[in-house]
Amino acid sequence: MVSTAPSPTDRHEAAQALVDFIHEGIPLARDMALQLHHYDGEQLTLAAPLAPNVNDKGCAFGGSLVSVMTLTGWGLVELALRARGEDCDVFVGESTVRYLSPVWDDFLSAAQLAPEADWTTFFGTLAARGKARIEVTCAVPGDEGKPAATLSARFVAKRRAHPRTDAASANAAK
Amino acid sequence: MVSTAPSPTDRHEAAQALVDFIHEGIPLARDMALQLHHYDGEQLTLAAPLAPNVNDKGCAFGGSLVSVMTLTGWGLVELALRARGEDCDVFVGESTVRYLSPVWDDFLSAAQLAPEADWTTFFGTLAARGKARIEVTCAVPGDEGKPAATLSARFVAKRRAHPRTDAASANAAK
Repeated sequence: MVSTAPSPTDRHEAAQALVDFIHEGIPLARDMALQLHHYDGEQLTLAAPLAPNVNDKGCAFGGSLVSVMTLTGWGLVELALRARGEDCDVFVGESTVRYLSPVWDDFLSAAQLAPEADWTTFFGTLAARGKARIEVTCAVPGDEGKPAATLSARFVAKRRAHPRTDAASANAAK
Repeated sequence: MVSTAPSPTDRHEAAQALVDFIHEGIPLARDMALQLHHYDGEQLTLAAPLAPNVNDKGCAFGGSLVSVMTLTGWGLVELALRARGEDCDVFVGESTVRYLSPVWDDFLSAAQLAPEADWTTFFGTLAARGKARIEVTCAVPGDEGKPAATLSARFVAKRRAHPRTDAASANAAK
């Protein structure tokens, strides 16, 4: 556990480092042209342009929406672990996706813990068992404050048996 | 409805035309280098190489797995509609994804109707209402005959108000 709360600048830099790492490790994330939009420690928001993520109808491809939402959820968990100095593999285990309305423009994807989830329980379980799961929700905002797509996903974090020393090789998205 | 059953060659050509259309309309499908593997009228199987779909760990990126499975399910429904001369928009409405084991190599994705679904009901509803939904299951085969990832998805087909005359502009994946 860190003893001092990170500043907004620290958080932004940590989130940017994670996005850079995603681009290095996952060719499809580069193809989708994912960018960091905002991270405040509770919510992570990524941005994606429509052009590389379009379908034949001119709106966002469902595969892009679910990929971006899954990466945003994964990133939220990964950033919380990194902020506490935990060296874990993080996997998405199961997710439910709802496609509610078409997305006709560049889009955002915002992830936060599910209402019933909390970091205290998650880190307590991780400390006790070396492994813990947590539920995350993610949404792509649509018109009039309604989501255009949502994702509920369970992520599993597992401490590495042999922690990596090279920061650049830290764990990236499943 | 067609009155004669299509031959295996007809089916393969129809499926190849669909995959070509996906590549034209969806940049991310090109990036994923999706290919037709097999189509027999009941099951559609697409293939994807690992290299463009890899994550930092060297296994398949979860976003690629879910994208390929969603496109395979969408393609199954689209091919059934095309074979019957139906001109519809097909959307994925909701899906549940399970990531069961990592995929370390090029992979396949095989889609078929869910056990409780049948084409007769689907086409009957479409004829009566101009809109129908159907449940599809999809799996990425893993080791020892077990799936590495599965998807259950509901697709909605809706007849177009103004059918397109240009075959090349027929509907592609959500």
